[in-house]
Parts: sequence; C-alpha cells; structure tokens
Amino acid sequence: MSDIKKVVLAYSGGLDTSVILKWLQDTYQCEVVTFTADLGQGEELDPARQKALKFGIKPENIFIDDLREEFVRDFVFPMFRANTIYEGEYLLGTSIARPLIAKRLIEIARETGADAIAHGATGKGNDQVRFELGAYALMPNIKIIAPWREWDLLSREKLLKYAEDAGIEIDMKHKQGGAPYSMDANLLHISYEGRHLEDPNAEPETSMWRWTVSPEEAPDQPEYIDVEFEKGDIVAINGKRMSAASVLTELNRLGGKHGIGRLDLVENRYVGMKSRGCYETPGGTIILTAHRAIESLTLDREVAHLKDDLMPRYASMIYNGYWWAPERVALQKLIDHTQEHVNGTVRLKLYKGNVIVVGRDSKSDSLFDSTIATFEDDAGAYDQKDAAGFIKLNALRLRIAAKARQK
Amino acid sequence: MSDIKKVVLAYSGGLDTSVILKWLQDTYQCEVVTFTADLGQGEELDPARQKALKFGIKPENIFIDDLREEFVRDFVFPMFRANTIYEGEYLLGTSIARPLIAKRLIEIARETGADAIAHGATGKGNDQVRFELGAYALMPNIKIIAPWREWDLLSREKLLKYAEDAGIEIDMKHKQGGAPYSMDANLLHISYEGRHLEDPNAEPETSMWRWTVSPEEAPDQPEYIDVEFEKGDIVAINGKRMSAASVLTELNRLGGKHGIGRLDLVENRYVGMKSRGCYETPGGTIILTAHRAIESLTLDREVAHLKDDLMPRYASMIYNGYWWAPERVALQKLIDHTQEHVNGTVRLKLYKGNVIVVGRDSKSDSLFDSTIATFEDDAGAYDQKDAAGFIKLNALRLRIAAKARQK
Amino acid sequence: MSDIKKVVLAYSGGLDTSVILKWLQDTYQCEVVTFTADLGQGEELDPARQKALKFGIKPENIFIDDLREEFVRDFVFPMFRANTIYEGEYLLGTSIARPLIAKRLIEIARETGADAIAHGATGKGNDQVRFELGAYALMPNIKIIAPWREWDLLSREKLLKYAEDAGIEIDMKHKQGGAPYSMDANLLHISYEGRHLEDPNAEPETSMWRWTVSPEEAPDQPEYIDVEFEKGDIVAINGKRMSAASVLTELNRLGGKHGIGRLDLVENRYVGMKSRGCYETPGGTIILTAHRAIESLTLDREVAHLKDDLMPRYASMIYNGYWWAPERVALQKLIDHTQEHVNGTVRLKLYKGNVIVVGRDSKSDSLFDSTIATFEDDAGAYDQKDAAGFIKLNALRLRIAAKARQK
Amino acid sequence: MSDIKKVVLAYSGGLDTSVILKWLQDTYQCEVVTFTADLGQGEELDPARQKALKFGIKPENIFIDDLREEFVRDFVFPMFRANTIYEGEYLLGTSIARPLIAKRLIEIARETGADAIAHGATGKGNDQVRFELGAYALMPNIKIIAPWREWDLLSREKLLKYAEDAGIEIDMKHKQGGAPYSMDANLLHISYEGRHLEDPNAEPETSMWRWTVSPEEAPDQPEYIDVEFEKGDIVAINGKRMSAASVLTELNRLGGKHGIGRLDLVENRYVGMKSRGCYETPGGTIILTAHRAIESLTLDREVAHLKDDLMPRYASMIYNGYWWAPERVALQKLIDHTQEHVNGTVRLKLYKGNVIVVGRDSKSDSLFDSTIATFEDDAGAYDQKDAAGFIKLNALRLRIAAKARQK
Repeated sequence: MSDIKKVVLAYSGGLDTSVILKWLQDTYQCEVVTFTADLGQGEELDPARQKALKFGIKPENIFIDDLREEFVRDFVFPMFRANTIYEGEYLLGTSIARPLIAKRLIEIARETGADAIAHGATGKGNDQVRFELGAYALMPNIKIIAPWREWDLLSREKLLKYAEDAGIEIDMKHKQGGAPYSMDANLLHISYEGRHLEDPNAEPETSMWRWTVSPEEAPDQPEYIDVEFEKGDIVAINGKRMSAASVLTELNRLGGKHGIGRLDLVENRYVGMKSRGCYETPGGTIILTAHRAIESLTLDREVAHLKDDLMPRYASMIYNGYWWAPERVALQKLIDHTQEHVNGTVRLKLYKGNVIVVGRDSKSDSLFDSTIATFEDDAGAYDQKDAAGFIKLNALRLRIAAKARQK
Repeated sequence: MSDIKKVVLAYSGGLDTSVILKWLQDTYQCEVVTFTADLGQGEELDPARQKALKFGIKPENIFIDDLREEFVRDFVFPMFRANTIYEGEYLLGTSIARPLIAKRLIEIARETGADAIAHGATGKGNDQVRFELGAYALMPNIKIIAPWREWDLLSREKLLKYAEDAGIEIDMKHKQGGAPYSMDANLLHISYEGRHLEDPNAEPETSMWRWTVSPEEAPDQPEYIDVEFEKGDIVAINGKRMSAASVLTELNRLGGKHGIGRLDLVENRYVGMKSRGCYETPGGTIILTAHRAIESLTLDREVAHLKDDLMPRYASMIYNGYWWAPERVALQKLIDHTQEHVNGTVRLKLYKGNVIVVGRDSKSDSLFDSTIATFEDDAGAYDQKDAAGFIKLNALRLRIAAKARQK
Repeated sequence: MSDIKKVVLAYSGGLDTSVILKWLQDTYQCEVVTFTADLGQGEELDPARQKALKFGIKPENIFIDDLREEFVRDFVFPMFRANTIYEGEYLLGTSIARPLIAKRLIEIARETGADAIAHGATGKGNDQVRFELGAYALMPNIKIIAPWREWDLLSREKLLKYAEDAGIEIDMKHKQGGAPYSMDANLLHISYEGRHLEDPNAEPETSMWRWTVSPEEAPDQPEYIDVEFEKGDIVAINGKRMSAASVLTELNRLGGKHGIGRLDLVENRYVGMKSRGCYETPGGTIILTAHRAIESLTLDREVAHLKDDLMPRYASMIYNGYWWAPERVALQKLIDHTQEHVNGTVRLKLYKGNVIVVGRDSKSDSLFDSTIATFEDDAGAYDQKDAAGFIKLNALRLRIAAKARQK
Repeated sequence: MSDIKKVVLAYSGGLDTSVILKWLQDTYQCEVVTFTADLGQGEELDPARQKALKFGIKPENIFIDDLREEFVRDFVFPMFRANTIYEGEYLLGTSIARPLIAKRLIEIARETGADAIAHGATGKGNDQVRFELGAYALMPNIKIIAPWREWDLLSREKLLKYAEDAGIEIDMKHKQGGAPYSMDANLLHISYEGRHLEDPNAEPETSMWRWTVSPEEAPDQPEYIDVEFEKGDIVAINGKRMSAASVLTELNRLGGKHGIGRLDLVENRYVGMKSRGCYETPGGTIILTAHRAIESLTLDREVAHLKDDLMPRYASMIYNGYWWAPERVALQKLIDHTQEHVNGTVRLKLYKGNVIVVGRDSKSDSLFDSTIATFEDDAGAYDQKDAAGFIKLNALRLRIAAKARQK
C-alpha cells in the first residue's frame, strides 16, 4: 500500500467521504487531492473547500468544478437521443453522472501527478463499477482505492466512531439513530435507496421525496409548454433559447411543480442482485416524452426501429458503467447520426404527474404526409391497389408453408 | 370474378360493412355469410343479425360469436407477457384483435364451404394486412375480397349514395356533413383516426374520448388495488379471482374512472406512411405497469434483458400482422417459458392518469434477496472484495486497449 | 403510358435487354437512353454501343461507364467491413452491385432530363426490388418501367420471336433449345440460377462454373499471400499497394486459380420464395476470411460482438435492396467508425478451395497482449485471484435464483 | 479452509490434476472423490482409477463415467441446432463440454455428500468460469476450490518439483524441457493453446495437429456422403441409423480423413484478454454445413433470420459459461421449437478440407416450391404484377423522405 504517493478523492464534503479522506491520510500516508463537482445536486460546494482545508489539504490540491453544462450537453442529452431507459423504467440518472466524474478524476490525476484515485462507493453497488471502468479506460495504469471494499468500518457505529475520533463534524440526522436513505443527486435526478425501501412491498414514505410534489399536491390547472428540438436536443422552452443545463433546470422546475417523474422500482444491478430504488427525474421524464414525439414525426420508421432494438443494450452499457468503452462510443455514432433531422417543436400538457403530448410540428423535417395518410380523397397520392401486391408477396412464404404443412 | 361462390364477410352491422355486404351481392353474385364478433367493443350484436336478415342472408349463414374470453386469454394476455409496446408508445389494441377475426373467418369458411372472405379495411391501413396475412397463413388458397381496394366508392358521397340506393339505413352522425372519426374498439382499447387528427399538431377535442374521463375529471381521491399474477397473467383483482375477460373489463372500469390510458401519437404504418392516432387503453395500461413490476421481482436479469431486446421485434410482428407466422409462434415459446415463475401480487395506486406501483410481492418466486442487497450489515452474505476482481476483469480489455492506443 | 418521354435503360447489350430496348420504343414511343456499366463482369462494352446505335439511339444518349473502382471502393469494401454474409452463406455479389446501377441510372436521368428508368429484372426476383427501391430513394418521382412485369413475352419462345421480328441478333446458345443459366457477373462474383439448378437436390454440372477451377483441378502446391489492411480495407497484396478494383481483381485471380469461393445454396428471396443459386466469389471469400482475422487482433471484444449481432440485419438490408435507405446509412456509420484501428497484415495459405489464416500482425493496433495471455509466468500482469471475484459476482444471480427455486 | 470435509475433483489422471489431488489432500486434509469422464477424448480411463487408488482414494469415491452419448445428445446436438459459432469462427468444442462436467460434479457431490468441488482450470481462462457458473447454478451453496488461483505452484518447475516430491509419475514429454501445448479433447474437438501459438503471427507446426490429416495429405479422391436429419439432428449417415455419439464419431473419422475442420484463430476470452487457439473439429464442421443446408430448405425465412440474429448471443452464452443459466434455457426453447420441421437429407462432398453441399432434400418438409421459383412458365403460380405493389409500398417511406429532404 505504501507505494501510493498522491490520490485524488471524489469528495462531496459529506460525512462518508470526510471519513474516507481521513482514512486515506491515516492508512496510505499519502497526499490527498480533493475533487468536488457541481453536477446540479443543489448543495453548496464551499463547505467542501473549508472541510478539505481543515484536513490539511493544500489549497492547490482542492478542485471544485461547476460541471453542469458539460454534464447535460455531453452526457445527459446524448443519452436521451436514444430514448434510453433501463429495464423499461429507470432513466439512468445516477449512471450517467459517473463517467463524467471518472473523467475529471483522471484529468486531475494527470494534472497533479497523482498515481491513484479514490471514491466512496460501496462494494455492493453499481457506482464502484462505473467509476473504475471509466478510470481504467481513460488511464489504464491508474491505481484505485475503494475504501468500502478495504476497511473494516462496515457498520454505521464504527464509521461514526471513526469520525468522532477524527474530529469530523457529524450533523444531526446522522446522530439520531437510524441510517438515512442512501441518496444521489445531480441535475438529472435524485435517488433513494435503503431503509424501509429494502422491503419491495412497502410504499415509500411521502416525506421521502424532495424534488417533486406529489401528483395530489400538484396544481389543479394544467400547464402547456412548447419545447424546441435541434438535432435531437432541446434548445428552447416556450420560445426561449437556453443552454443545455438551463433547459434541464427549467424542466426540473416545471416537472417538479406538476408532480412529474417519480419512479419506484426494483432493478437488476450489474453486480448480480436486485435492489429497490426510488427516483425523481422530473425534467428527464419530460425530455423523454418530448423526444419520442418529435422523433415520431421526423425519423424514418426503420431507423426508429433500429434505435428501439438497440436501446436496451445501450441502456445496459450506461447502467453497467461502459460509457467510455468503445462499444458505447460506436453506438453513439449511429445514434447521433440519426438525429440530424430531429428538429421541430413539441407541445406538452403537464398535469398532476402526466406529461401529455398534444402536438408536434417540424417545418423542416416532418415525414408526416397528410396528403397520403388522409381518410379523404387523396387525389392519387397513394394507389390502394398497391396494397394487394404488397400483401400477396409478404404472404407468399406463409402460403407456401401452409400448403407444405397440409400435405 | 365470377368464380367466387360463397364469401364470409367480417360484418359489424355498421354502415360501411352493410354497403360492402350489398356490394358483394351485386358484384360477385355470390352467397354471403356474415360473421359478427363480440370482442368487447361495447355494441349490441343483435341489430347486426337483423340487418343481415334484411339483406337476405340465410339464418344459417349468420354467425355471431362472443369471443371475449378467447380474445383476452389467447391474444391479449400472451402479448402482455412480453411487455409489448410498438414504437415506445402504442399498446397494439387494434393489431391484437385482427388475428382472432382472421382465425374465425377461416374457421367459418371451412365450416360453410366458402371459397372467399371479405373485410372492410381500407387499402391504406394496417388492418387489411393483418386480416389477409392471417387468412393466407391459415388457409393458403383462400380468396380474399377487399372492396376498398376494388370498388370506386372512394369518396364519402359515393358511399352514402350507394347506401341510399340500396335502402341501407344511414344514421344521423353520418348524414350530418363531415366524416366521423375512424374508430375501432374491443375489450383492450378504442382508437380514433382521421378528421382533424390528421394534423399532428392539433390537440384532440375533449369530446372525442369515450372510455376514460380526463385526468382533470377523475376522482380527487386515489384508489389502491391489488392484482395477482399467475405465470405472467392477472388472475385476480383485490383478491377476487376472475376470468381473463372479466379481469380486463374490471381494469377498464378502474382505469377509465381514473383517467388512465389515453394515448396520442404518430405511428409508422407497415404500408409505409406515418399516421396520427389516439387510443384509450385503460386496462391495458394497468396490466403493462403491473406486469413489469412483478417481473422486476421474479425474473432473472438476463432473461428480462433478453425479453426487452426482443420486445420491439415482437411488437412489430403483431403490428404488421404476423401473429400467425412461424417467427411469432417461435418467439412466443420463449416468452411463455419465461413466465413460469412470474407469480405474485402487485399493489397499485390509481390517480388522475397515473398508475403508480407501490408494492410488489411474491411468496413463491421472489428473487429479491434483502439479506444481500441491504445497506446494513449483511452477515457475510456478500463479500464486497469480490467486486474488485469483478471490476478488474471487466476492465481488462479496456485497459489493454488504452495501453495499446497510447503507444 | 403515353406520358413517358424519355427513359434510361440499364442496357447490357445482351438479348434480353435488346428486346426490352425495342419493346420500349414500340410500346412507349419514347426516347431511350442506354446505360451500360463496366462493373468487372468481363465482357466487352463496345458491342453494346454498336447495338444501341443500330436501334437508333442517339450517340449522346449512349452512356458507357467504367465503374469498377467506385464499385469496389464505395460498395464492396464497405460491405466487407461488416463481415457481411446473408443467411450464413451468401456473399451478396449481385445485391451489392444493384445500388450503384440505380445511382447511375438516376444520375443519367437527371443529366438527360429523362422521366423514367427501365431495367431487365424479372418480377420474381430480388433485383427489381433493389433497382427500384434505390431509384425511388434517390429520386422519389421517377417513373419505373419493368417490362417483365408488363409485357406478355413471358415464354422463351415469345421472346425469341419478338427478337427475330425486330431483327435482333440471336447468338447460338440462345438458338439451341433450352434456356441458359440465368447469370449475373461483376468484379465480386458470378452467379447461376435456373435450369437444372431448380432441383435443389441436383449437383451442379462441372461445366457450369466459369471463374474458378474446381478444388480437384487446383494446383497441388499451396500459395502463401500477405494482405495488408488500412481501416478495414485491403490496400496491398504481397507488399504491393493497389487500387480497390485492382485488389479485388488480383484476389479473384488468386482465388480462381486455387478453386476458392464456390457456393451452392438455397436462399430466401425478399419476394417470399426460396431459390437455388450457385455463386463464385473467389476474391470476396479471401477478403472475408482475412478481414475477420485482422479484426480478431485489432477489434475490441464488445465492438466485435456488436458488429456480429448486427451483421445479419445489415446483410438483409443489402440483400433486400435497402442500400440507399437511411437505416443502412446509419448502420454504416457505426461500422465504418469501428474500422479506425483495423490495420495490419494477414498471411494466408491458399490451397484447393481452402483459405487458411496462418498469421496476423498489427504493429500499430494489436490488442493481443502476450504478456497477459501467456501460459508462462506473466510477472504479475494478470492476477489470477481476480477471477474468483469475477466469477462470484457473475454467479450471484444464478445462486440467488437456485436458492429461491429450491424452496 | 479447514471446514471442507469432502471434495469432488474433476480428475483426468494426468500430471496436473494428479498434483492437484495430492495438494488437496495436503492442504485441505479432506476426503477426495475423483470424477473421470469419457467424453470421447480418446484416452484410456483405467489408468485414472489406478492412480486414484494409489493416492488412497477409496474405491467408492472413484467415479468413472462414459458420458459420450449424453454429451452429444444433450449438449452438442442442441448447440448445432442454432448453427452456433463464436466470433464467426470457433465451434465451441471446449465450451460445450464444461457444463456436462459441472453437472456430473454436482450430482456426485450430492451422491457422496461432498461439500466442495475442485477443478484444474487456470485463473486466466474461460474454463474456470464455465465450471463454476455451472456448479453455482446447480448447487448454490457448493464450495469451489480452484487450486491454480490459490497455490503457489505457478511455474512449471515448482509443479514438477511438487509432483516429484509426492512420487507422482512424470512422463517423458513433461520431463523434456518446454511445456507441452495446453490441450483439451472430447468427441467434438481437440484444442491447442500456448507455446509458440502465443505469437499470433506464427503458423502452427504441422506436427501439432492430431486428429486430422492436412488437406495436402488428404485423399485425392473426393468422398460423397448422405446425412439424414430428424428435428435438426443427424440420425443417420449413408442410410445407416446411429446413436448421437456414433454419428459424431463417424463424422470425425470422415472429416479427419479428408483434412476437414482445422481452425487457427484469435478469440476474445470472457476474462478480458485475447488468446490464440488452434482447433480440430472435423465432425462438427460437417454437421454445421449440413445443418445449414437442411434448414435452407425447410425453415421459414423469418424464423431462420431470427435464429441468425440470436445466434451470436447464444454462442456467447455457451462460450462464457452460461449453459445452465435461465437465459440459455429460454433461448433453447425457441431454437428447439424451430427444429420441428428440420427433417431431410443432405448430400455432401468431402475433399481436401472442403465440405461441399451438393444436394438437399426433404420429402416431408421442403418449403422449396419449384413451381413458383422457376424461370420457366409458372402457370400462374406467381403473379409478377404483385411485385409492383410490393415495391411501391416498401418504397413509400423512402419516397416521402426523399421528397421532404428535397424541400
């Protein structure tokens, strides 16, 4: 262990990563670099700097970055171009943030000449995999310290004792017996695991949810919004052009207000177990619905089906931590190419948990041809007799087989 | 044309198929057998018999069947076992009824010695394909008459004139200028196409919807229900065991009451055009959500992912009319096999358009192992150190490549 | 029919398309533009010019193009980047030439202001579909004349009579009773259909094959060759750099000499029937084997598997005529991206029908790490203990299920 | 370690597993049960019994089973029903034997009350994964000992020293410096890895191959054989009905004689590295070719394509060790179902490394309809005009898009 000289720690400033910071100093006797990111989790970052300084971290070793625009532009939006959902339900809010953190950890390691990184993910979850696969892909010789897999602070009591001994401030919620939910937040979502969610048959407490009101508490009046797409990404809301992070921030506000985007599910972790998670993804839920709607108008059928067929696999790549793997990059080439013509506007009605598409339009790229689809006279745009031959030849193999099997 | 002696017509008793009935008699000079099915569309079937008699159809040539149980048991439920959705949205309410109608048309053709069948689907839509592929697969030498592809009654006016001349009763809605929505209904759904829906940017009129109240008009109090699954199918609601059709009827009632299951979308037809459709699938929407929930607890991860990967293809098979094709039958073998352990109960909260899973339980088949997933001390059920090797070997190819590419 | 003014005919100069040329003049009373392409079929093109002139075609309406380089560079090579095989056997030699012909037909139609194109493919085959889908995709309002679907010259006798009446020269092979094989040739392959091949249980006559010797007649000495790849394409043979068409020409020579690339199969046509075809693809068979070998060394496992999973679908797109469709273009983006690192050399042994890989090397892009793979001491490059955790977590879901099912 | 009381060892009788046997006795101080299987590897099993007795294994703890019929019937044949090939080349000869060995190890563990199993696979390969995933799936609480991952006998010298000290007989080939090829053999194949194969650019020594003659040394006269299929499996050769193992034995003889089935490739291991392997699979190569041929005649197009699309995934499941996983079992249901009609006879020509299909026939299940496919007059079996409508509607989306993109 003694060969590690400098380690970059993904540091939130919270209790767990503070204990890790101290434990790294104690155990590895190495220089620690802290990295704290603003991914839109809605917490002040300045306390993280103060705490790091208290641990004796050198000012030049404290990295605090606002990554919100990069997060949405280069990770969230590319993912939504594929209408990505894991296991039919989960919008991958945690999964999609990890590769960016891995990337920054490695960049900082290079910048500071560190030979290792460390993170606070446990040995049971997906996040350790996501951090580490990303880090290895970007810097194959990096050393990785995962304290939860190494130390013996596996009970809550031991951890608190260690914190106390180290003079780490423990706030009220931790002192009051009972572990809190295991939570993760960024601009795309907030997640909850643990506590009584560990019984998949138990309904979540209403007090758990933080970002959205319940549908019951949402306004009695629906709200209509227009979102505008360029190459598959939302670039404007109600006619107002915005940056990527601003789009998601505003959609979170709107979704949260209308009780949109709560999820309660049992998922299959990459490490082999089922786990119960609750998620709030207000803006993401709106994006997904709107994106499908604009694609329904502008995307060729077979391209859309190809994307649908590949989506679950793409979702698993992200869920399992393979964002930086070449197969994800290759799939992204295909996905991004298909978005060339995904331009136009979708009109949505938000109401008590519902995101309802009420209109879709694309001046430049609509493939909806009402002169053909009409139930009225189409003036010869479509020759109904063509359908006879179409059906006859599609049926040919079925007829040949039916005759053969009759024999 | 003169070689057709007896034709079985899929006869609803409505205006269009009444005109077709007369037109067949006029044009083919052949005996007509009428087949009218109760698929749960919610219309009286007796008038169809009376009308058929008026056209001179012999009593033994009038077939009126209650197919509701068969429809749900052998078509709707098997489809939902795959969590089937077409193009991310559509629950295939029309598509799944067509193969049953095709099957009965052929059975009746055999029974009555008819040499042809006829249907009222237009040459622009999917239904002609579904009817005819099914019929050809089941009876390869059957002749098929599709009047909309043959006759010259392509404008509304001509059709009404023909009806009038033939003494066919035309009810009010048809007389009042303006075509009605093109609709299709069965126990799974009701659909709307045409009229001002032909503009994909126009919101549907609130008066259009027939089966569900709007979320706004739904009760202010949520309702909790329990649904019980056996081998992937719902067999009981709130502890009360029911037949397949009764399950769907009851879920339609509950969903309709709570504003659940409205869809408004643009879809890609098999014949090559995009079309706009609105659908109400209250019970089906509940089944889909509940089925995913019980599978999340009882299905192996890789089996679930295999199903997810194949689902869009299975959905296209049904949408395109290949229910009776061998590739659909082969996929169904796989799907049905996976449902062996999909047993248990899901608790749902219905509220203003939302179907919210609040609990899932399976005494016999749960794969959720809380002793492993727990954030608490797991007493050695899971060795966190295993994750290190797991990640290392999954990362190996990425690291080798990163090193190679560095050169 | 009278509204067609100028038609571009895909004209080989042979009997069938000569009859078509005359028939178009007779039937449509329109100006005919002839297009004859050198795709490497090994026939003189000049006679086609002379014949066209005899039919009164204006010199400026006679197009004779050498498309060999474009054919291999933009069609054959891109296809082989995906290791494309249809139905496990067929190397798509006919299919891949059709989109290029469709493209040139449309280019010439634009250039000459023609409003229609015509081709000599029958109504039973795939080629009509490939020509026409391509043409429609490139010029949606083009009119297409497919004489075999329109005229009444469906028997050999009628066709010969028409030719005779029109003063079209009929060579010996046609005069001697019995239809010849239906053949198609280009730089990638030559195909045979019809005659006694219509019995799938009959072995082809040895006299049928034209490009390759039989394995029995091939040299008794093997021949070793080196082929060099850049981004997935062969750019040099035995150290000699060559153009795309020259590569394929040389590989055809080598393959033909060594009895390589004969195929005898039953395939499923897009129009719904099974048909028997024999093919000679000497160079293509060598490319496929060599390309797989260089990919085995330079391609990431998951990228390779993604390509393998998508390949049959890509093959069907080409076979069915969808080269110019957006789904093929989208897949090609993915495929081409993956070839960035497919650089290196493959050593092959050619012997009596066998293409045997005996070495593969890539100085720049090999992912083969012998320090890790070795059975000898690896000096710590790989920690065997990692495998324990890898297996444990991959087994976790299986163990949980086994325990649950035991209950 | 002391808690293991009885362990079942997969025991070949060779040097490595003899050392393991002794090491288990020394290290775990436990009772050892030996299991030696005849999978057709062509070695005498009696010496294994003698050696086991020498180590003090109780007679009732020595299990020697002839598993050849079960191996071919329940593992090899089901795999070939899917035309299974891993990474376009490898016929999975090693992979497919492992699940059977795992199954017997577990059966014997249950029978003898053992609490552990042990195997001789190294920590770098796929076999450890295959043994252990299988064992865990069949008996989730089994303990598994993988000596290569535990002990310190990692160099050849240490292993030989240990053997010598333990009085284990070391034959000549091991004494003469230089490790032998790492080999595995069973009725389906023999494999070679290691030594100078570790350079992927080096051609194998001609002396390495054991089962087949080289194509050069094969007879100058081709040999024709007929193989008969029932439900996708070969049941007779040249009209002589045989058991599954006899079929494979005879095809190995024929293939070996004619130089058929040598493979030399670089493959991607599940544990993340590329490795070079050479394989001889004479009989399997014949089965694969013949099976594709009989399917080409009897299988519906879309069923065949569905199988082709799923095959690489199925191959990976087997390669990676998931034979006993529910996803493999589910896929097998689909595959086996499709073989119902795969009945008939294939005629093959074997000549110097080539397996050439020269005829295929199925009295009961052929879907080849020569009356439709013919180039001659088909007497109305197929209406060429149908193709026009077929093409028109398949082109519709392409035309609409082309028009839209022109704007």
